Amino acid sequence: MTETPARRGPWIVNATRRVYDNPWIGISEHDVTDPGGNPGLYGVCEVKSVAVGIVPVDAQGHVWLVGQHRFPRDYYSWELPEGGGRLDVPPIDSARRELKEETGLTAGNWLEILHTDFSNAISDEIGVGFLAWDLTVGDADPDPDEKIDIRRLPFAAALEMALAGEIRDAFSQNMLMKVEILGRRGSLPGPVADALGYPA
Amino acid sequence: MTETPARRGPWIVNATRRVYDNPWIGISEHDVTDPGGNPGLYGVCEVKSVAVGIVPVDAQGHVWLVGQHRFPRDYYSWELPEGGGRLDVPPIDSARRELKEETGLTAGNWLEILHTDFSNAISDEIGVGFLAWDLTVGDADPDPDEKIDIRRLPFAAALEMALAGEIRDAFSQNMLMKVEILGRRGSLPGPVADALGYPA
Repeated sequence: MTETPARRGPWIVNATRRVYDNPWIGISEHDVTDPGGNPGLYGVCEVKSVAVGIVPVDAQGHVWLVGQHRFPRDYYSWELPEGGGRLDVPPIDSARRELKEETGLTAGNWLEILHTDFSNAISDEIGVGFLAWDLTVGDADPDPDEKIDIRRLPFAAALEMALAGEIRDAFSQNMLMKVEILGRRGSLPGPVADALGYPA
Repeated sequence: MTETPARRGPWIVNATRRVYDNPWIGISEHDVTDPGGNPGLYGVCEVKSVAVGIVPVDAQGHVWLVGQHRFPRDYYSWELPEGGGRLDVPPIDSARRELKEETGLTAGNWLEILHTDFSNAISDEIGVGFLAWDLTVGDADPDPDEKIDIRRLPFAAALEMALAGEIRDAFSQNMLMKVEILGRRGSLPGPVADALGYPA
């Protein structure tokens, strides 16, 4: 328990306790004075990694999806390659590692396409999304606790899965829609626009 | 502590403990056997509400954003109207309530435009997004612990904020991009397409 009257914008933090920790997440519970001036409690889920996600586009306009059973909601989920990077490692380096581990792909070119905060009333988790192209296929090396499937399909088909709700993961939906919008605006890198059939 | 050997897809749950609770979130910690067959721990952040979000479009093609200081990452955030609905209440009813509370708006027409899972490796939180139109302006009635600002602006300007990262909230980014994509495809309801200048 620390007694640290401090401000976060209109919030006053009167005390903070660490009430839960595991290797991946923790909960800090704060006694606060809320913006309305009333005493309250705020428990923040602190995530010990930065989420990185990748849209890997090959010369035929295909992308890769990763399928796995997601434990928290108990369902099988197709997603873009994603993972957690160390907070002290540049997200691009974590993205390179995750792409290689999950799909075996290495990419000659990378472009950061979005930053996003997943649930900013509850957690401090952030995500950084990348476009990757000029791909070379190699051997995957998934984490031993992961059991994943890999699927290569046209970008347009992956986008339709996101729009139809067959891809339920917010990060994947977000990245796929952003590529579509940038593509229609002529704002994608030339080789990616060519591969995906968007105007240059 | 409950001893409940049970399956979640390729995961085996050997025991579950409730290790944290506040009125809004809790943590269930599970002793698992992971898909690779190894013993492990999985702490799930369980969210006691369903996130609802609204894109409220008026006849002039404007939308409303809500600004507030988000405590977990300590920054001021412009977002679409959003809130948490009770798990036992239909999301559309929670969306009507949140829209009215935060902006004073009531809408004659509603369309569900997306389902999303915000952070499906860590939490069980889900979001349901709606398009709302045929708007009537009334008095807002924000929660006493909220201190929010309201801004009405053209939809196109809000979309640009999302694409540029000035809107950092994943749910808002997701809803704004989905409306843009549906709009360009001619898949929005006629009055909304007309107001936003998309093909009918």
